Amino acid sequence: MSQPPEVHSAWLPPSAFRALGSRRIRIEGRGLLVDTVRSEVAQACASFGGRICEPGEPADLVLDASVTSSEGFRIGRLGESTVVAADGPAGLLHGLFEVVRRGEAAFDPALAEERHEPALPLRVLDHWDNVDVHPVMGQVERGYSGGSIFWRNGRLREDLTRVRGYARLLAATGINAVTVNNVNVHTTETHLLTDGLGQVATLAGIFRAYGIRVHLSVNFAAPVILGDLDTADPLDDAVRQWWKRTTERVFEAIPDFGGYLVKADSEGQPGPFTYGRDHADGANMLAAALAPYDAVVRWRAFVYNHRQDWRDRTTDRARAAFDHFAPLDGRFDDNVIVQVKHGPMDFQTREPVSPVLFAMPYTRLAVELQVTQEYTGQQKHVCYLPPMWSSLPLRSAAGLTAVSSVGDDPFWTGHPLAQANLYAVGRLGWNPGLDPLAVLDEWISLTFPGLREVLHDLMDDSWQTYEQYTAPLGVGFMVRPGHHYGPDVDGYEYTPWGTYHFADRDGVGVDRTVATGTGFAGLYPKPFSQLYESRATCPDELLLFFHHVPYDHVLQSGTTVIQHIYDTHFAGAERVAGMRERWLSAAGPVDPAVHARVAERLDEQLRSAEEWRDQINTYFYRKSGIPDAKGRTIH
Amino acid sequence: MSQPPEVHSAWLPPSAFRALGSRRIRIEGRGLLVDTVRSEVAQACASFGGRICEPGEPADLVLDASVTSSEGFRIGRLGESTVVAADGPAGLLHGLFEVVRRGEAAFDPALAEERHEPALPLRVLDHWDNVDVHPVMGQVERGYSGGSIFWRNGRLREDLTRVRGYARLLAATGINAVTVNNVNVHTTETHLLTDGLGQVATLAGIFRAYGIRVHLSVNFAAPVILGDLDTADPLDDAVRQWWKRTTERVFEAIPDFGGYLVKADSEGQPGPFTYGRDHADGANMLAAALAPYDAVVRWRAFVYNHRQDWRDRTTDRARAAFDHFAPLDGRFDDNVIVQVKHGPMDFQTREPVSPVLFAMPYTRLAVELQVTQEYTGQQKHVCYLPPMWSSLPLRSAAGLTAVSSVGDDPFWTGHPLAQANLYAVGRLGWNPGLDPLAVLDEWISLTFPGLREVLHDLMDDSWQTYEQYTAPLGVGFMVRPGHHYGPDVDGYEYTPWGTYHFADRDGVGVDRTVATGTGFAGLYPKPFSQLYESRATCPDELLLFFHHVPYDHVLQSGTTVIQHIYDTHFAGAERVAGMRERWLSAAGPVDPAVHARVAERLDEQLRSAEEWRDQINTYFYRKSGIPDAKGRTIH
Repeated sequence: MSQPPEVHSAWLPPSAFRALGSRRIRIEGRGLLVDTVRSEVAQACASFGGRICEPGEPADLVLDASVTSSEGFRIGRLGESTVVAADGPAGLLHGLFEVVRRGEAAFDPALAEERHEPALPLRVLDHWDNVDVHPVMGQVERGYSGGSIFWRNGRLREDLTRVRGYARLLAATGINAVTVNNVNVHTTETHLLTDGLGQVATLAGIFRAYGIRVHLSVNFAAPVILGDLDTADPLDDAVRQWWKRTTERVFEAIPDFGGYLVKADSEGQPGPFTYGRDHADGANMLAAALAPYDAVVRWRAFVYNHRQDWRDRTTDRARAAFDHFAPLDGRFDDNVIVQVKHGPMDFQTREPVSPVLFAMPYTRLAVELQVTQEYTGQQKHVCYLPPMWSSLPLRSAAGLTAVSSVGDDPFWTGHPLAQANLYAVGRLGWNPGLDPLAVLDEWISLTFPGLREVLHDLMDDSWQTYEQYTAPLGVGFMVRPGHHYGPDVDGYEYTPWGTYHFADRDGVGVDRTVATGTGFAGLYPKPFSQLYESRATCPDELLLFFHHVPYDHVLQSGTTVIQHIYDTHFAGAERVAGMRERWLSAAGPVDPAVHARVAERLDEQLRSAEEWRDQINTYFYRKSGIPDAKGRTIH
Repeated sequence: MSQPPEVHSAWLPPSAFRALGSRRIRIEGRGLLVDTVRSEVAQACASFGGRICEPGEPADLVLDASVTSSEGFRIGRLGESTVVAADGPAGLLHGLFEVVRRGEAAFDPALAEERHEPALPLRVLDHWDNVDVHPVMGQVERGYSGGSIFWRNGRLREDLTRVRGYARLLAATGINAVTVNNVNVHTTETHLLTDGLGQVATLAGIFRAYGIRVHLSVNFAAPVILGDLDTADPLDDAVRQWWKRTTERVFEAIPDFGGYLVKADSEGQPGPFTYGRDHADGANMLAAALAPYDAVVRWRAFVYNHRQDWRDRTTDRARAAFDHFAPLDGRFDDNVIVQVKHGPMDFQTREPVSPVLFAMPYTRLAVELQVTQEYTGQQKHVCYLPPMWSSLPLRSAAGLTAVSSVGDDPFWTGHPLAQANLYAVGRLGWNPGLDPLAVLDEWISLTFPGLREVLHDLMDDSWQTYEQYTAPLGVGFMVRPGHHYGPDVDGYEYTPWGTYHFADRDGVGVDRTVATGTGFAGLYPKPFSQLYESRATCPDELLLFFHHVPYDHVLQSGTTVIQHIYDTHFAGAERVAGMRERWLSAAGPVDPAVHARVAERLDEQLRSAEEWRDQINTYFYRKSGIPDAKGRTIH
């Protein structure tokens, strides 16, 4: 087997800078980010024969930054030059990467003028990295790409070269913030806020050069855990003063610090409930401490009862975030962002959009995605996620946040093709209107320009393929408890986690209707609530999320539920076999290390897809007793 | 909550020595074990006013040891004295504890003469203790009583007081050997055989004073792991010489060393298969190294494919030990004991007796039991196991071996009532014909003399109660994968472990008949093979072990399988509720620490029994669609 590269260049290989690097380029503006632009250009020119011009010289490209903090820029032609006129230094950096993405086309005399600015002001990657290795979750919780690029042996790594490379990659996608520690804030990580702050400042210094601000996940009980107070009550004066003073020190160390991320009263994390306060009390207390600065509290809405009794069918975890947060609409301070998972459950392959996103017009909301593929193949499976993400109402959000998939793996993301999700999340945060397949094409063109056809064949429909061979029709879960990889249909069925499918010999699915179920469907605005309420109109792919139906229920597609299960599972596994063949046939133009890594993962994806197919089909055949209409092998 | 005692006195509280300690006692004989007897007697007399007599003085009790190595003794009356005439020092020690058990009755003038000698020459407790804490299994694999009493922080504990106390407790039951490390021999533990041997010798010194010999679990690949050789091929001369030399050094350090225990080619452990050799080759190689000494190789028959494809219904894990070992009958050397788990699967609550025990007349066999309650409630549930054990063909075995349940818990076994299993395994190894409830009565009389009635109420039927609310009719497993506590009906159904129930909407169970199944039933001698082969004659409690039957199949008891499942699960949980009430009502005469610990465990047992009841009932109701004839709540 060939050796993988020490660190893969991802979507910024030297060749991506060819068009830019062969030009005469003038750069106007001042400051750290303009210096970064200058250094990028100088490096490109050194490789491809271009040069940086003096003022007044004729230039092929003019990069010009004004002095505002806006991230927008205009790109167009002026005489013989392509001009990027940026609102400020950050915009210039984004403009530079726009030129990189366009390649030769950026210098087309017919280039039409366009203005670019981010749809969402906050575009952040949250790292679930632990400073210490957690005994159960390891160093990166739900991480499938090795250790943390930030932390090692309980403190900041000595060699931070990869952090710089990472900052550069993120900047090229449009990401402008990074949270450097896990939302489950254990003891060592709680100290990052105080005596560990120097390490955070070091990271902030590296990210700053690429226009990326650092955020910290904080422990709501930090005043107690750090031993300073015996309460963390958000209405207690001493607590409020503690956060104020602590925050002052954070900004002394990191003047452009981005803010706090909080998982409170969720899955065992501490929070305001302990003191009889609500989430608004908790969030606003931190908001008050941050108010003097340009920074935000992000408060996660992922709150539910994780000690539910499976026998109790009236409790519906899908309702939880809505029931906890919608009543608080209007009570959050302006510098609070409530961070809402994209679906009401937990990053499943298929969920409806969270109704919280429509229910809080007087609250700033961010949508949270999971780039790390916890439930979507753990970077062993090819699963290009933007077709799912682009269905979300991102335009109106205050931010797009995503759990990072990056680790110290040579390919950054374990599976080389998983880089595409990381790339795309930044691009969609900047412009949610982008066509997901166009973004994929961008990524391929930059990263693996010789593989356009094969990668489109493998990736375009890979999310749908993954959906085909895993849990059917929006029912979700059916994964092995704990690590969440591979099938276990009843794995969560009789647990306290609130993730049930209620399959019996007659049917399957969760009745979340208003008429006969948990009422969850009624939490949506019309027409969605009506659409979901009726079996007849509920989209097939969400049917079992909203309805408990018999196995012989006929879908809108015309097939029965049980036959759909069989058909999609046979089809999905077959498609993976085809993907594997397709990749093996593409050996020619591919870097052998990339080819080997992808081939090894496709072997596992095929094994796993067949395991999913056989377990799901067998389970439902044993329950329903209905044979496959096509007589295929079910065990 | 009241503090537990530092170490509970178990079945040897001072009061147990009252009758003995108030007598005049003459002791005749010499040697280490006679000194132990003398010291026990002196201590008892110091508490209760008796005394040790000089030769010629009138004595109430004469303890007299001859000089053989036999463990037998006679007890009877001679004139005004009770006399224990032992074949040798070990017999004297056993005789002493016989007198303790009998209490005042030992001094009854009408005492009839009896000869006692052990039915099984080897009676050993195997400790699955790791020297290092294992990342998954912890320090004691399948241990539910805290850390190891032998090992801590990667080496022998400094304070070995508890080891001495443990040796004394075991001697009082009849145990004569202890294996001091886990059969899964990890790297640190492999070194116990060589550079760690001094620590084993220290333990041997403590156990020796109570007539207990120390055994070691060894890694078959030790010559390779310890870096001495590049092969562990049992037919390789260098390997044979390595084991011979290594064994010589073991006996230099521990002249009465008892032998090696080996788990080879099982669940990932190394073994002779690597070199194209079979189990007889492997065992006999070690036997040759041990041949100059009075010691044995115990070679475990627990060998099966743990990477089975669940889709493959022709492979039957229950057959594995038979298929591997029965053909080797007659090929094992005389100092090899093949150690066979009592059932063909793995220590389930109900299994048929392993057919290997009838299939190897030319091989010395030991039966292996699990005192540690891995699948029988993990010492959170009351489950008195001897009624199961006493059904085994122990009389003809060369040894009784049992996985210990002891840890550094103040009560030794976590649950105070779990001490009874530990006590009983030694007593049954000495005399398999003992009535399990009489042994329980002995244990109660020694340990909790004021609680005879309540403990019989709680414990007599506790194994049957446990069976009622867990996996039904001998089908086994249905536990949470990994830790094996609590129900998960499909937890192992689609895994590589070979532990399936094949429940579908029509029926449940494993067809192991010769006529239509895996043929396992045919591995038994007649009449068992015929009995098991037919649904009509197969005992109800093993029906699903041998047959796949419809839910409406009528049992010999007259009820259907499905109704039996419902009835037993309701009844089992109800019985646990009754046990809890019974214990709470017994608060008066009980040590508060014991009462609190047992009460806390009964709370958990009740919660768990109700969880089992509801999951099992719900699972089978959802599958079968057949309602409970008595209309009770099924979720």
